[in-house]
Amino acid sequence: MKQPIETQALIIGAGPAGLFAAFELGLMGISAHIVDALPYVGGQCIELYPDKPIYDIPGTPATTGRQLVASLLEQIKPFDTPLHLGQQVSAIEKQTDTGFKLSTTEGQTFTSQTIFIAAGVGAFLPKKLSVAGLDAFEGRQIFYHVSQLPKDANQRITIVGSEDAAVQAAIELSQHHTVTLLHRRDVFNAAPDSLSTMRNLVASGKMQLSIGQIAGFETDNAKLSALQITDVNGVTAPLPTDTLLVLQGLSPKLGPVADWGLALDRKQLQVDTEKFQTSEVGIFAVGDINTYPGKRKLIVSGFHEATLAAFAAAEIVFPNTPTQLLYTTTSTLLLKRLGRSVE
Amino acid sequence: MKQPIETQALIIGAGPAGLFAAFELGLMGISAHIVDALPYVGGQCIELYPDKPIYDIPGTPATTGRQLVASLLEQIKPFDTPLHLGQQVSAIEKQTDTGFKLSTTEGQTFTSQTIFIAAGVGAFLPKKLSVAGLDAFEGRQIFYHVSQLPKDANQRITIVGSEDAAVQAAIELSQHHTVTLLHRRDVFNAAPDSLSTMRNLVASGKMQLSIGQIAGFETDNAKLSALQITDVNGVTAPLPTDTLLVLQGLSPKLGPVADWGLALDRKQLQVDTEKFQTSEVGIFAVGDINTYPGKRKLIVSGFHEATLAAFAAAEIVFPNTPTQLLYTTTSTLLLKRLGRSVE
Repeated sequence: MKQPIETQALIIGAGPAGLFAAFELGLMGISAHIVDALPYVGGQCIELYPDKPIYDIPGTPATTGRQLVASLLEQIKPFDTPLHLGQQVSAIEKQTDTGFKLSTTEGQTFTSQTIFIAAGVGAFLPKKLSVAGLDAFEGRQIFYHVSQLPKDANQRITIVGSEDAAVQAAIELSQHHTVTLLHRRDVFNAAPDSLSTMRNLVASGKMQLSIGQIAGFETDNAKLSALQITDVNGVTAPLPTDTLLVLQGLSPKLGPVADWGLALDRKQLQVDTEKFQTSEVGIFAVGDINTYPGKRKLIVSGFHEATLAAFAAAEIVFPNTPTQLLYTTTSTLLLKRLGRSVE
Repeated sequence: MKQPIETQALIIGAGPAGLFAAFELGLMGISAHIVDALPYVGGQCIELYPDKPIYDIPGTPATTGRQLVASLLEQIKPFDTPLHLGQQVSAIEKQTDTGFKLSTTEGQTFTSQTIFIAAGVGAFLPKKLSVAGLDAFEGRQIFYHVSQLPKDANQRITIVGSEDAAVQAAIELSQHHTVTLLHRRDVFNAAPDSLSTMRNLVASGKMQLSIGQIAGFETDNAKLSALQITDVNGVTAPLPTDTLLVLQGLSPKLGPVADWGLALDRKQLQVDTEKFQTSEVGIFAVGDINTYPGKRKLIVSGFHEATLAAFAAAEIVFPNTPTQLLYTTTSTLLLKRLGRSVE
């Protein structure tokens, strides 16, 4: 059981809006923690366009998803905001007195006075298989991350996928296991080096290639024992499998956020434009996940929303202190919080 | 008479909000011109904190007023937005058909479909003298910029001021004129080099120093001939003066904006948060000059406001084209407008 964490703000989502929320909260002297479903920060910037140029960040004539995230991380460095990655906030509960109780899929619990939902297009989660009944084996024989494979994994591993992650995993695991790489077409989209290594392993019999779709499965003593694979000619045959590793990429899922009873408009959280607060006092939504009249899903707007929401959070966290507008050019308090020397 | 200019958007104010409005308008394919009272771009960034560090521009961990303006200028470079500096928009007139007619203090006229007021805390204008009757000589014998001095300026020039600009002008003009530097106290706030040069010129009789206040003036044949200077002992004596150069610094003035009949709240232009439009359709206000519930005078907010206002302007300029949200990471149209090669 992990130690519960008490914080003044919990930020859900480590994309640009969530990271900048951490910055503005830090400037205001509000403690914050960040949770993200991905095992790394950056959200869409990293997941969708890590190396594509971005030209519309104000004051940054050109950058990339990766560079922007690096800059934002540098900007929040003075606040040492703790990151809780690779986990989703699965439950939020309003406390009777003040604030919220939250828990993640990794068993981390928080109590927080305010919540910043900066979950973008949703949590980036592995694309699951949709074969009736197969999900019963998830976590025991079916896995969605290489890191989740049990150490005593059985010899016959089937890997589903056609991109870098799947091809790479097949190459590595084939050193110690009987590996079959499974995809519906004989077309793989990976780095040329990986592709030729994989083809060589297949040619030399050190790895199997199975082209077809999972039509069903077989069990033995309540355990998954084989997949039924239907090939392009419609012929179905069993593929003995002890462990199934599914690496079909990630896709965003709104996930639990949709179940917290917050007002939604077409899967977006409705907020006001004064505080960017949801229908629940103390829960703010910033960035692509929110909606209001005029909303455009642009990073520049997420920055503004995070800023005004942080001011609103300050009124909750410090109810007896009027919130002042201070400037980093002139305020010694802000400079101190930023760890900058005061002239 | 200057050639009238026709444009789709006229931006009043070349501070960060105005410059970023030019960028967003450019992305949308809307032509824009910028007018600013100062003879250079940058607004408050340059006037108030050119060399102070700024830490809260998202994605820019540290910059200065001057660096931020340079970055924004680089960012709008693809659009070649024409700048009309050193002049104020003095009049706005609604056209009967569509758009607005505007004119500046330098006699430039525009017709524009939309107006972006990004005038910050107002136009930075020279601090004027407040001596009854003296303003009658403005533009003929009294000037507020060195550049305004007529070439045939008379020999006896009195310069009012105590900072760099005044001390520098006194040094330079003393080479060919009889110069008196006038300030109410014998305290000057200029670069050490300039100060010692000035003191040396005074000591060697090549420049006069007058410590006192202007109590009145004398005329000769309807021309200003002398100022009456009251010294610290209360003694008043005439200071023969043909040309008076007033360099007391700049101070922001809301100016004509206040007279255009737009809804104001404590000298701020009231806007909605969907389009950042004022009470007049087609006139938007962005940055420090506007107000709405939750408004904070921060550059990050000006950027967001300029962006949504540009989208709203697109609906006016292209009434039959639905405004699409395009991304610089993926849109070949935006990349073309930015002059970037398309992969």
